[in-house]
Amino acid sequence: MKKISESAVRRLSLYLRFLQEADAAGVETISSGELARRGGATSAQVRKDLSLFGSFGKRGTGYSVRELVREIRTILGLDRTWRVALVGAGKLGSALFSYRDFEARGFQIRAVFDSDPGKVGASWGGLTVFPDEEMDRILREEKVDIAIVAVPADAAQGVVDRIVRAGVRSILNFAPVRLRVPEAVTLRNVDVTLELEGLSFGLNAR
Amino acid sequence: MKKISESAVRRLSLYLRFLQEADAAGVETISSGELARRGGATSAQVRKDLSLFGSFGKRGTGYSVRELVREIRTILGLDRTWRVALVGAGKLGSALFSYRDFEARGFQIRAVFDSDPGKVGASWGGLTVFPDEEMDRILREEKVDIAIVAVPADAAQGVVDRIVRAGVRSILNFAPVRLRVPEAVTLRNVDVTLELEGLSFGLNAR
Repeated sequence: MKKISESAVRRLSLYLRFLQEADAAGVETISSGELARRGGATSAQVRKDLSLFGSFGKRGTGYSVRELVREIRTILGLDRTWRVALVGAGKLGSALFSYRDFEARGFQIRAVFDSDPGKVGASWGGLTVFPDEEMDRILREEKVDIAIVAVPADAAQGVVDRIVRAGVRSILNFAPVRLRVPEAVTLRNVDVTLELEGLSFGLNAR
Repeated sequence: MKKISESAVRRLSLYLRFLQEADAAGVETISSGELARRGGATSAQVRKDLSLFGSFGKRGTGYSVRELVREIRTILGLDRTWRVALVGAGKLGSALFSYRDFEARGFQIRAVFDSDPGKVGASWGGLTVFPDEEMDRILREEKVDIAIVAVPADAAQGVVDRIVRAGVRSILNFAPVRLRVPEAVTLRNVDVTLELEGLSFGLNAR
């Protein structure tokens, strides 16, 4: 498989959402133009994105919605379950934990950690909140694939170092700080302050 | 001022965080190399980014930390207060509301809305949660600059249409759906599912 850019992967996720809606609405085939409109791309881009993985769709009749859903799910690794740990049982952690869309998409939270003794021992939907010190053992025992980091900025690097030591190779970070990870680890950042500052810049430049 | 890319604006935010830390630690000058390391860029990139706004810094001695903090804050529009509305008083809304970093960076939440009668009327840090129907009036009265949308996917487009009608021109959307806005409106998306799917793709491709 060719090297696929992060932005192409993003577009695949967007196509998938739209295709699943279309499928639920009983739509059977779809044109690259319709997909493009929803994925924020051009039809040529859609055809190029999908051609990365082989050729679906027939000229003139468009793509089979159901087939495309299946193919993109496979490509994105959504045809299986990923084992997720949540580090940080504060307000953001709680919001993420209760976000049902995760489970529906195959991201299953298997463990929750917090450094605050006041939170450790609490039960979250059948899971016990464990102290950070137990991370190494539990991440390995639970064979966690992905760790979500929802701790304050000044604690985040320490937490991430721990996660990496426990062998987890994919991290989604919500702390507003750039973290250092070894090259073998994939780190994505969700940085709300950065987005707000982008909006502020835009308002200011008007 | 030249047209500045979204990614350059992002780097400015990252430089700023680092510079503020450096300032707090008593550091007076800084090289483009150090800034580059923290902003995830090259020194040439840093010099290019900063040159967009005029020339700071002296050859050989680096940039004055304090001056650069001031300049970047001005560029990003962080030397003033922005009036923010939060639409959606659920778990995510609550996590965002309690996120103190916003206020510290000049983003002041002035109004909270929810469509759930069970949430309307509640007091959030001195603010009353208002029903969506009051949005038009209150967004105008409070002269809201930025609206944060933290509602379920299927409600998001309706909420955004309302926000746009009330004259708000900057929106930060957390609902996992692509929204349509007029060209004059700036929309940024924080899409957690998309990030997780990117990680899933990476794990799957290994």
